[in-house]
Amino acid sequence: MLGASPLRRPAMESQDFLLTLLLILLCARLFAELAMRLKAPSVIGELLAGVALGPSLMGWIEPNEVLRLLAEIGIILLLFEVGLETDIRQLARSGRKSVVVAVGGFLAPFLLGAALAYWGFGLSLLVSLFIGGTLTATSIGITVRVLTDLRRQNCEEGQVVLGAAVLDDVLGVILLALLYEFSTQGGISLANTGKVLVFIVAFFVLAPIAAKLLSLLIQRFDRSSDLPGLIPTSIVSLVLFFAWLAHAVGAPELLGGFAAGLALSRRFFLPFGIALRQDDHFSDRIERQMEPIIHLWTPLFFVMVGLSLNLREIDWASPFIWGFSALFFVLALFGKLVGALMIREHWTQRLIIALAMAPRGEVGLIFAELGRTSGIFDNEIYAGMIIVIALTTVLPPLWMKRAYRLRDACMGADQSA
Amino acid sequence: MLGASPLRRPAMESQDFLLTLLLILLCARLFAELAMRLKAPSVIGELLAGVALGPSLMGWIEPNEVLRLLAEIGIILLLFEVGLETDIRQLARSGRKSVVVAVGGFLAPFLLGAALAYWGFGLSLLVSLFIGGTLTATSIGITVRVLTDLRRQNCEEGQVVLGAAVLDDVLGVILLALLYEFSTQGGISLANTGKVLVFIVAFFVLAPIAAKLLSLLIQRFDRSSDLPGLIPTSIVSLVLFFAWLAHAVGAPELLGGFAAGLALSRRFFLPFGIALRQDDHFSDRIERQMEPIIHLWTPLFFVMVGLSLNLREIDWASPFIWGFSALFFVLALFGKLVGALMIREHWTQRLIIALAMAPRGEVGLIFAELGRTSGIFDNEIYAGMIIVIALTTVLPPLWMKRAYRLRDACMGADQSA
Repeated sequence: MLGASPLRRPAMESQDFLLTLLLILLCARLFAELAMRLKAPSVIGELLAGVALGPSLMGWIEPNEVLRLLAEIGIILLLFEVGLETDIRQLARSGRKSVVVAVGGFLAPFLLGAALAYWGFGLSLLVSLFIGGTLTATSIGITVRVLTDLRRQNCEEGQVVLGAAVLDDVLGVILLALLYEFSTQGGISLANTGKVLVFIVAFFVLAPIAAKLLSLLIQRFDRSSDLPGLIPTSIVSLVLFFAWLAHAVGAPELLGGFAAGLALSRRFFLPFGIALRQDDHFSDRIERQMEPIIHLWTPLFFVMVGLSLNLREIDWASPFIWGFSALFFVLALFGKLVGALMIREHWTQRLIIALAMAPRGEVGLIFAELGRTSGIFDNEIYAGMIIVIALTTVLPPLWMKRAYRLRDACMGADQSA
Repeated sequence: MLGASPLRRPAMESQDFLLTLLLILLCARLFAELAMRLKAPSVIGELLAGVALGPSLMGWIEPNEVLRLLAEIGIILLLFEVGLETDIRQLARSGRKSVVVAVGGFLAPFLLGAALAYWGFGLSLLVSLFIGGTLTATSIGITVRVLTDLRRQNCEEGQVVLGAAVLDDVLGVILLALLYEFSTQGGISLANTGKVLVFIVAFFVLAPIAAKLLSLLIQRFDRSSDLPGLIPTSIVSLVLFFAWLAHAVGAPELLGGFAAGLALSRRFFLPFGIALRQDDHFSDRIERQMEPIIHLWTPLFFVMVGLSLNLREIDWASPFIWGFSALFFVLALFGKLVGALMIREHWTQRLIIALAMAPRGEVGLIFAELGRTSGIFDNEIYAGMIIVIALTTVLPPLWMKRAYRLRDACMGADQSA
């Protein structure tokens, strides 16, 4: 038969790839619509689509190299869009609060998690530290999508959470590197860490300025070019470049996308800013043309997180798993609340911030995976961590709408009192 | 150092991928701009960008699995766009001419090429047939891009060429399957071929109707959904589905994209059409939102063709190669002219049609690759074929502008006479 002969290309594979992409896009959309109608953030639908299609349930799609790379670009583009919509002045205003929320919500789960594992469960120091690590870092992707789904990304608490999530991501990468160094070499070098920190700070100061200058170059080019398609190719190139650069200095790639987005946002300003104004028409075109690309690409990331979450590997009959994961889930939530409690806000506002920071998503999965592949986690602890990650990723976003209702009721009552 | 530790994901690879994509997008754009300024079709620039980045010149990028799959989607999306802009009535009107151009331009290079190889160069029958095969099929992707670059896709000759290129692609796939069968089993089964032909014809009759019905479903869904991003995800899903379906019936995948585009075009009609009207606003939105995605993705395909063309493997000092490839290049051009000569048109119009049908591009490469990997082509013949493919791909598009000027001059003279 024709279908089986080596037509044009190694045929089966490309056909399989088309079908895989089709399944991912369709299911992500259907589950997201369903989530919306059930009044949940649509990102939960996309995550569950991945769980359903992946090894947890149907087993139709295995997470593979190609999908992983496409998902990576999806999340970089999403962070670009978030940056594009961010008001850098507002972000700077909420900066102090963001730092407190990030550092508190980073240290508390790490220290409490490690302590519970070490003293409560009698695990070794290395295992305990890895458990703490798995519980620390917020998934910035899921957090910002939840805020966008709820249309709260530009509110005050949205800005606090966004800033905190960015910092949290940087801290997470550094902790992962330190733990990795500790596990392979038995010690850590603070000089190295310091160097990386300097690089990252320099990146965050310089990258938006560089991106701004490049965007002005693109704008000039745009006026003189007759060839269509300049904006999608050049803006995506710009985003890829800063993601690559972020990685090169030791920062998470997706924050490169965020820096590029910030620079191109309408509300970006430089200290010596007046000469660098971008015309509004150009900003409009960037937003309008990048939107379909981002909408197409980002579901791949969230579905991929769901695909990577293999719930079949868990021995659901084990009572240890239930107790272990329930305890650490509560600790994971409480840990993020510690950061939120340290700022001066109405208690409902703090609750919202803690819930928004709770999803561990893919960052937790990377820690857990590293723990397993390096032999630090045995199967049971790995499975427990997977459950904790899944719960923090799915439940707090579902609770956020209620928290908002609570806040609006309380604030209303406070104001009328 | 942090950069080398396994941060988040197997880090090097994803970083390399970002850089690869960045290089491809940037170089494709720069070379395309350059081609434009030199008054050449921009697609030539993209092809040369691939040659420059790939093993032929700099060796920075190796064609790999991920790029191949992305390129595949790029060409499917381009054919979708071509379908979207096609007037099916006009295509049907030029149908008879298209059939003549396609069949003539398909048989002539095949038979003449095989004859020259068999009698002229004393090669074996199988080798000769594969040489003929390599010379037959037009690269529909390059042909339609050249027409679009020259803004002639909607002229009469554009429609003849488009129809002919579609048919040619179908014939090419069937010939490839037959030759493959012949080379592995020493004979061919006409029953199989007949079955495939029936499938393909059925696909082309039914697919646009099915795609139309699905698009109406999407349109209805679109009205009731609050979630942004429906059009990019659902339309790309639709295109992927028909590409997959095309492959399943034995037709080239990219023609599935073309069928979906035809169905969604503003000028599509069904025999029982009145009830199926698509509103213009929806068509507008599809075009506007798909455009950036298509512009982003299609250069990947043309760069990939350039990457696959390894000119380093050629022994440029061999006099045999020069004579062999020069002869077959002339024959490849003349072969396509045969088809064009069989229709009743002004001679300059025939010349334009022949030049438009000349690029062999990736389809020729697939034949040549299959010839080499199955041991039918030795290195010298393979190298000769690569040169012929490169020449037919790059030169005729460059000559088309001149042919158009010639035609306009002659037609003007004829009219004023």
